[in-house]
Amino acid sequence: MDDRIHEHADVLVEWSARIEPGDDVIVDVAENAHGLGVAVAEKLGEIGANLTVTYGSDEITRAYLRAHDGEFEASKGELALFENADAYLRLDGGRNTAETADIEAETRQSYSRSRWEIRDARMDTDWVSTVHPTRSLAQQAGMAYEEYAEFVYGAILRDWETLAERMAQVKQRLEESGTVRIVKERDDQPKTDVTMSIEGRTAVNSAASVAYDSHNLPSGEVFTAPYDTDGQVFFDVPMTIDGRRVRNVRLVFKKGEVVEFEAEQGEDAIQNVLETDAGARRLGEFGIGMNRDIDRFTDNILFDEKMGDTVHLALGRAYDSNLPNGEAGNDSAVHVDLISDLAEASRIELDGETIQRDGVFWFEDGVGGE
Amino acid sequence: MDDRIHEHADVLVEWSARIEPGDDVIVDVAENAHGLGVAVAEKLGEIGANLTVTYGSDEITRAYLRAHDGEFEASKGELALFENADAYLRLDGGRNTAETADIEAETRQSYSRSRWEIRDARMDTDWVSTVHPTRSLAQQAGMAYEEYAEFVYGAILRDWETLAERMAQVKQRLEESGTVRIVKERDDQPKTDVTMSIEGRTAVNSAASVAYDSHNLPSGEVFTAPYDTDGQVFFDVPMTIDGRRVRNVRLVFKKGEVVEFEAEQGEDAIQNVLETDAGARRLGEFGIGMNRDIDRFTDNILFDEKMGDTVHLALGRAYDSNLPNGEAGNDSAVHVDLISDLAEASRIELDGETIQRDGVFWFEDGVGGE
Repeated sequence: MDDRIHEHADVLVEWSARIEPGDDVIVDVAENAHGLGVAVAEKLGEIGANLTVTYGSDEITRAYLRAHDGEFEASKGELALFENADAYLRLDGGRNTAETADIEAETRQSYSRSRWEIRDARMDTDWVSTVHPTRSLAQQAGMAYEEYAEFVYGAILRDWETLAERMAQVKQRLEESGTVRIVKERDDQPKTDVTMSIEGRTAVNSAASVAYDSHNLPSGEVFTAPYDTDGQVFFDVPMTIDGRRVRNVRLVFKKGEVVEFEAEQGEDAIQNVLETDAGARRLGEFGIGMNRDIDRFTDNILFDEKMGDTVHLALGRAYDSNLPNGEAGNDSAVHVDLISDLAEASRIELDGETIQRDGVFWFEDGVGGE
Repeated sequence: MDDRIHEHADVLVEWSARIEPGDDVIVDVAENAHGLGVAVAEKLGEIGANLTVTYGSDEITRAYLRAHDGEFEASKGELALFENADAYLRLDGGRNTAETADIEAETRQSYSRSRWEIRDARMDTDWVSTVHPTRSLAQQAGMAYEEYAEFVYGAILRDWETLAERMAQVKQRLEESGTVRIVKERDDQPKTDVTMSIEGRTAVNSAASVAYDSHNLPSGEVFTAPYDTDGQVFFDVPMTIDGRRVRNVRLVFKKGEVVEFEAEQGEDAIQNVLETDAGARRLGEFGIGMNRDIDRFTDNILFDEKMGDTVHLALGRAYDSNLPNGEAGNDSAVHVDLISDLAEASRIELDGETIQRDGVFWFEDGVGGE
């Protein structure tokens, strides 16, 4: 077995999920994530954790959902399984990223609604999502398989402690600030100039570990929950939303709500998102990507939103971890991230002070305070 | 997808497990049983059952067990999962039938002991074991893959109702009888002449359905729990016991216990079994194979013990289904089947009446009563 698979398992189990002896751990193995499943099982055996393995197959889910009449009922046993678990490790890596493309939206939503208790119980564990490099994901990224595997391990097998320290500085600045402004003035695209309030919100130092309220491996972003958004943003990093490619989205906000939108490609996908519910027209997240080993777009949100020199805004639901004292954040059935590249002609300001210019932070070359 | 996979799923879900709308069903999918998993999920969706999918990977189990120090603890959540389930469908079909060959027996036993509550909860559901034809199983059987798949579907996709009716006659005769005698006198092997008491024991008409107390697909045997065994038996159908090939076993019983044994090949495997505990030297099962579509040895006990024209005796644990009124049967940590071919120079007698001669039953050509 490729040594990197064992290293990936070590990072996942030790750094990310902080598994201890006697923990009840559920490992969900996707169709082609078998190799990582074996390495993770070995690591959990070494530690003396208790292992239950589930199978996360999109092909099985599709067959079940398409055959079902839509009146779903959640399994009590599956709920009890998650209620009793200490950790849940999701190993993604399917055979076909488009496998669920022909499931009716209504069926998908109805299934999802029937499982909200299971989802809540799962989110109450020390859960972590990661991905095993597969041919299907390489294809989605437009990369050769070996090249893609190198990219994935580059993003995952890094010094997380050092990145966590760098990100801690950004977290602190965000929490000390009341407003954030993002400006981008490139000749080749519509101007971005947007302000958001972040007063009183907690920022998450997402360092790929439950010890940092972070549940993705890789991670590498600092994010918070903004409100009262005003202005225009141009998102130039492509996205796949509900199986459709979306490119070059322009959103205009007034008093926190989207009042105008257009997209060069996939405008109907954006429209569907915005029409979901009232919360879908407001932002649930503002995040700053800080994982510079993610240096290219690979059409996988787990990676794309953490890309160095980018920011992302999510339409829809806010995370509880950004809301101190159980305050209510933006609520919605959706959470859809859109990404903007700030490597050129761009800056991020906090209360009027520039903390990042063209992707470079104040603590990197002293742009702060100007 | 091969139509036979869908037919297999239909038989499993409808005839074998009798799944109804709203049932909580756990489907355990082995490494290479994915295709059957998809077909079963579709069938469960049609019926409106609730689906939880686990992953039965020998490679994952091996990695976990070998890394573990041996002080196992069962997961409470996994126990709750099975306690709440209505049915458990195990879809076998791995990548390598020898995958667990290098796990220490002690580790295996300790793991197994830690999971007895889970096993009991699983046995309390409407559980069914079946097998998806894989290359690995074809190799174990010494057959080409296509040929093996035909053999498997031949044994599974049959008229179970008609076989159940035929077997019901044998069940009734066994339950009306006090002693069974098996005689085989072939020039090329040691003589078989053994008698067992079956007085007061219930026989199971194992027709591949939970409605018949039968939990294997394929099935096709009638079995009961004998005691007070006396005489000699020669088992000429090969077996694999704990990963070792065993051939031509001769056992001599006195007052229910094995007092002498030898084997042309794998004698140490038989010795290990016999030394497990006191119950391992007594019989837990006497079964008559009645699935004539299983017409050859394929080195897989799920099939071999149901072969037409054979009988099998199992050393070790008896099944509760053979013990009316909660009577205590033979108890042991093991249950190891040994098979004898009765196609030639053989007969089965019940209370002195021949019910089968050279594989032919009394109701087939009137051998009974002679």
